[in-house]
Amino acid sequence: MNTFTAPTIANIESNDLRLQLQQIIDSKTKPLGALGKLETLALQIGLILGTTSPQIKQPQIRVFAADHGLAVHGTSAFPSAVTAQMVLNFLQGGAAINVLARQHNIELKVVDAGVATDFDSAAFKNQPQLLDYKVRHGSRDALNEQAMTDEECVIALNNGMEVAKQLTGNLLIVGEMGIGNTSAASLLLARLGNLPIADCIGRGTGLDDAGLLRKEQILTQVLQRHEDAITPFAALAALGGLEIAMMVGALIQAASQRQILLIDGFIASIALLVAEHLAPGVRQYAIFAHHSAEPGHEILLQLLHATPLLNLHMRLGEGSGAALAYPLLQSACAIMNEMASFSDAGISEQNS
Amino acid sequence: MNTFTAPTIANIESNDLRLQLQQIIDSKTKPLGALGKLETLALQIGLILGTTSPQIKQPQIRVFAADHGLAVHGTSAFPSAVTAQMVLNFLQGGAAINVLARQHNIELKVVDAGVATDFDSAAFKNQPQLLDYKVRHGSRDALNEQAMTDEECVIALNNGMEVAKQLTGNLLIVGEMGIGNTSAASLLLARLGNLPIADCIGRGTGLDDAGLLRKEQILTQVLQRHEDAITPFAALAALGGLEIAMMVGALIQAASQRQILLIDGFIASIALLVAEHLAPGVRQYAIFAHHSAEPGHEILLQLLHATPLLNLHMRLGEGSGAALAYPLLQSACAIMNEMASFSDAGISEQNS
Repeated sequence: MNTFTAPTIANIESNDLRLQLQQIIDSKTKPLGALGKLETLALQIGLILGTTSPQIKQPQIRVFAADHGLAVHGTSAFPSAVTAQMVLNFLQGGAAINVLARQHNIELKVVDAGVATDFDSAAFKNQPQLLDYKVRHGSRDALNEQAMTDEECVIALNNGMEVAKQLTGNLLIVGEMGIGNTSAASLLLARLGNLPIADCIGRGTGLDDAGLLRKEQILTQVLQRHEDAITPFAALAALGGLEIAMMVGALIQAASQRQILLIDGFIASIALLVAEHLAPGVRQYAIFAHHSAEPGHEILLQLLHATPLLNLHMRLGEGSGAALAYPLLQSACAIMNEMASFSDAGISEQNS
Repeated sequence: MNTFTAPTIANIESNDLRLQLQQIIDSKTKPLGALGKLETLALQIGLILGTTSPQIKQPQIRVFAADHGLAVHGTSAFPSAVTAQMVLNFLQGGAAINVLARQHNIELKVVDAGVATDFDSAAFKNQPQLLDYKVRHGSRDALNEQAMTDEECVIALNNGMEVAKQLTGNLLIVGEMGIGNTSAASLLLARLGNLPIADCIGRGTGLDDAGLLRKEQILTQVLQRHEDAITPFAALAALGGLEIAMMVGALIQAASQRQILLIDGFIASIALLVAEHLAPGVRQYAIFAHHSAEPGHEILLQLLHATPLLNLHMRLGEGSGAALAYPLLQSACAIMNEMASFSDAGISEQNS
């Protein structure tokens, strides 16, 4: 089987519910519109969850980890071995995303989407936090062949959907760990956005000037090698990584379950772009958490007509920006559910 | 007694501690600088609290409420009665700041700095959440006389210091409620920043075009009436409100206690500007929570060389923007205390 079938995505729009939500927001004891983006956030969450009393339940982070065949060409500031080392760090609770997930009571699991290392040592045994969906030991070298064969790409997408099918809550953050994955994201952005690669790349986790130039040259060659990979699926298979494909599947499935997609930075946003191409309507379920310092993210956000909640000049991935923005979503819900209205509180309304 | 004596403010800067903090931040399992502003936040909090393991303890919100004599001229979209009505809303737990304070376990108390209404009805009896520091029933009409006499202004500043002396934790948010207080803040900004009043005003909580023009005309007259009120103290007494003066006192005292000042929007920022003039060094203790939609705030932030954490187009006051930003400070502390270092986790460092 090498075709991917996306589930149907429901339209969140409902004139009646939108009016009801807006009326409730406007009745709260504050000047009209004074809570700014928190109000639009409350409206969107209400529409996604289909209720005027939205509540976030059992929020989940899934960190998708994989290696990238292309990384052998030195497109990243860190060696590929770091992907597996960071998986261990996640399992030991020491990474940034662990700290933030604990702070906000978001359950975190790590998905092995295709890390080059086998996780069969004692450190990984009986780890309920590690989900084994490894498709292969790292994606193929996109300079020579498709990063994933069509079949591998379908398996990765379906694996991502499987991961999301197990979610019992109503909010999903997809994080990632994969040395070399900003290159894959830049390639997908250049192809799907029809943009020059130079506009889509950055220093990733810390390339110097020479490294950045090398990255541009290599990615240009990759795009030439796969100049016929035009459709979203073909582009994903040729240019994307295993973790990105799995994130795409997870986002599509979660949207089909009417769950909130809290979108992290550059990699998560490119996964959303691909997901929207493969399953139109997914974008409606997305709340953009933060503006990454990775240059391609700005362009990608414009393509997606997205204005993120935070801009803290972060470029870590893992889902960290999304975890930081999470309490703002809780606040938006709490405002809807707990704040008094003018009539509740007996307060004079605005002079007309 | 009509002079104000500010306490000494300690310099937070320490080369040794700064180096130690930076070293710890850089040793964490992430690319250098990848946590962006969260890293500078961790550094500043470490310097303020004088430790490499910063922890926020017993965070407090004090909402200072007062009426404004100038409001009789129609400078606000809401009637003055709303100040007292909102105090009742705070005490009943129904305002936005109540919702956010509950969400983040921040203790909230309301300070009557000079509300025009007497709080002697049953609804206010035995309310430990309401602190009575009323100086008078609203400030005077600044179009005709000083908003506060020098003596009243000193009392308000000292009352604010008293409020802060009772704080046992290490973080203070000063919020406010006072119909007409964006006018007072604009007047102070124009005078202390030597700026045209037109650049310093906005629609407050919702003025229309005609209201905005009227506000500009009235505030221009007020500035002419008090053209000799040049020193920070004289400007505060002539132009400021009772709640603003009390916020100034609270910020100064809290800084002298080495407490973190989490600064909300336009009104809290103007209080900080005045505080820095009266007690140089206070600014070092300030973390700017959010960028208000009130136009004067942008100019004020530039004067203060401040880049806030959030920009959610809010313009509510009450301390709401600061409460929303609060979890980011907790994250910065948690990163310092809980995140693994490269050597802890056995992770390969960046290629050089």
